[in-house]
Amino acid sequence: MARATLVLAAATLALQGCAAAAIPVVAGGFVGQKALKHRKARKPDRGAPTAYRLLDLKELPRPTNAAPTVPASMQYLYGSGEAAALSLQAYMGLANYLVGLPADRSIGHDVPSVVIAPGSTLEAPTFVPCGKKPLAIVFDIDETAVLNLGYEADAARRGEGFDAQRWADWERTGRTQVAVVPGLLDVIKVARIENIAVVFNSNRSVAHAAETAAMLNDLGLGPAVEGRTLWLQGDESGKDARRWAIAAKYCVVAMSGDQLGDFSDLFNAPALLPSARREAVAGRKTSLMWGHGWFMLPNPVYGTGLKGDFDTVFPPATRWVPTPTPAAPTPLPAKEK
Amino acid sequence: MARATLVLAAATLALQGCAAAAIPVVAGGFVGQKALKHRKARKPDRGAPTAYRLLDLKELPRPTNAAPTVPASMQYLYGSGEAAALSLQAYMGLANYLVGLPADRSIGHDVPSVVIAPGSTLEAPTFVPCGKKPLAIVFDIDETAVLNLGYEADAARRGEGFDAQRWADWERTGRTQVAVVPGLLDVIKVARIENIAVVFNSNRSVAHAAETAAMLNDLGLGPAVEGRTLWLQGDESGKDARRWAIAAKYCVVAMSGDQLGDFSDLFNAPALLPSARREAVAGRKTSLMWGHGWFMLPNPVYGTGLKGDFDTVFPPATRWVPTPTPAAPTPLPAKEK
Repeated sequence: MARATLVLAAATLALQGCAAAAIPVVAGGFVGQKALKHRKARKPDRGAPTAYRLLDLKELPRPTNAAPTVPASMQYLYGSGEAAALSLQAYMGLANYLVGLPADRSIGHDVPSVVIAPGSTLEAPTFVPCGKKPLAIVFDIDETAVLNLGYEADAARRGEGFDAQRWADWERTGRTQVAVVPGLLDVIKVARIENIAVVFNSNRSVAHAAETAAMLNDLGLGPAVEGRTLWLQGDESGKDARRWAIAAKYCVVAMSGDQLGDFSDLFNAPALLPSARREAVAGRKTSLMWGHGWFMLPNPVYGTGLKGDFDTVFPPATRWVPTPTPAAPTPLPAKEK
Repeated sequence: MARATLVLAAATLALQGCAAAAIPVVAGGFVGQKALKHRKARKPDRGAPTAYRLLDLKELPRPTNAAPTVPASMQYLYGSGEAAALSLQAYMGLANYLVGLPADRSIGHDVPSVVIAPGSTLEAPTFVPCGKKPLAIVFDIDETAVLNLGYEADAARRGEGFDAQRWADWERTGRTQVAVVPGLLDVIKVARIENIAVVFNSNRSVAHAAETAAMLNDLGLGPAVEGRTLWLQGDESGKDARRWAIAAKYCVVAMSGDQLGDFSDLFNAPALLPSARREAVAGRKTSLMWGHGWFMLPNPVYGTGLKGDFDTVFPPATRWVPTPTPAAPTPLPAKEK
């Protein structure tokens, strides 16, 4: 959107002989100042040719010696101790939650399933019964089991949004440029000790099942076997359908994800505005699930959490203006008066 | 930073008769197109006067009918069910953690303090002893107890970074345009039932202690009494100093915050690069604290988590390029060749 605006601006301005004006604001201060010096050094060009090049470019050129800027959300998720603490907190909680469940079952107690049953609601959820099915925990993959550092670094460098073709390439080839989410390996250890199966439910494509399974196995998160401990887009239409297929074989005692859709597709009903999703999460029943069968991981970088216009995110009732009002603009220079 | 670049660009370009070029890219597509139509309609101006006004303006004008855009990090923290789930998860965990501690103490068991003792380290932390001091939990305020919707909406509208003067005004007057962080009221309830004191330790200024106390009390988070259950910047030099002052009066069994500095100032040692902070958080001892005495809340909007250049956030070992490489840019038009 901002990019589109820029290219439009660039083109229109170029026809007025101001093509260079479009460059600095996008490419950042360093490039901007350099570009302007450069422009002043050479005699004014016609503008139009530059504009055509701008319009044809997939990305604005970046000098090779300038490191790409990193969006704040990526600094936070991939670089901060704060986000690492959130992940450790979620997974320490999951590990603690698992301990004792097999003991409960071994003395004949019922063990609670956390998969919302078909036809159920978020207001009055019922859960797929466990019966005597073997215990399992279900994990999303992206930004839940692995941090996709390689793909996101490329995205930061491009400075653009999601690129489906690039993501498909990433699923196929990006097996080593990842990091395991902090704390997960401890949960896997506990699951092994407690004889609880580890199952992955992801929207990655089934077309790359082999590569995804290899990645998980190489990271020590496996064994990932498609259709048993690894469920991907194509195995079933949606995550709920896959959850129900998994819950037909296992007693799912815990689920972990970075998106509400990793717990129930009901959170993604088209009718739900962001404010309604927030209320649904904090509902009388659903609020009790967080850290108690459902374990949320942080992800401000992409996904269903990045929605909402100004009035949705900041309800009008919360509007505020400072008092005293900020200082007035400095007077115009004398020659202007 | 981007703003500064823009103003520089605006000025320099203005002297080249291109002042209008600076407007569209900042103010967005709508304004951009309007401004350009406008510019084309009137005969070319000298540019310079416009440029001086741009330099003098505190903010670029925004048409009243255009809603400000909301940064992704704000959509996530203030608008998403995902972030609400993270907060509920942290506070459900804290509530569960509290239950039983008073019982332990009443039967003569030691209760663990979570305040790292002076002179201790993150690698081998020792904690301020509890003795028979009354139990307390310590909360940060901003983005831990309250979501500062009014201030952040204003920040989103301004499209600028932190403004100390505006924040001071906010501490003084922004008492009602806030929301309590999801799940906190349940923790307060449990604390009251268990007779555990609720103490706030914030970097808000002691100059606004009365307004901050009134806000907390109005929200049902009090009683907040400065120097006893409310500690602010000015009461002691740093958060550790205030923590130790609090721990001298109370047995602090849990702490909650959105920044690592809400748990120990050791995380903010100048020598610690973001990667080292991440390692410190996941250390052999510290990793055990998350969700087990230390409770982290999400905040990708501001703070010590938003640091790190490209190579720090994305270690070179994680570099990835897609294969096959993306299509080459479309050829230049014939007249260009």
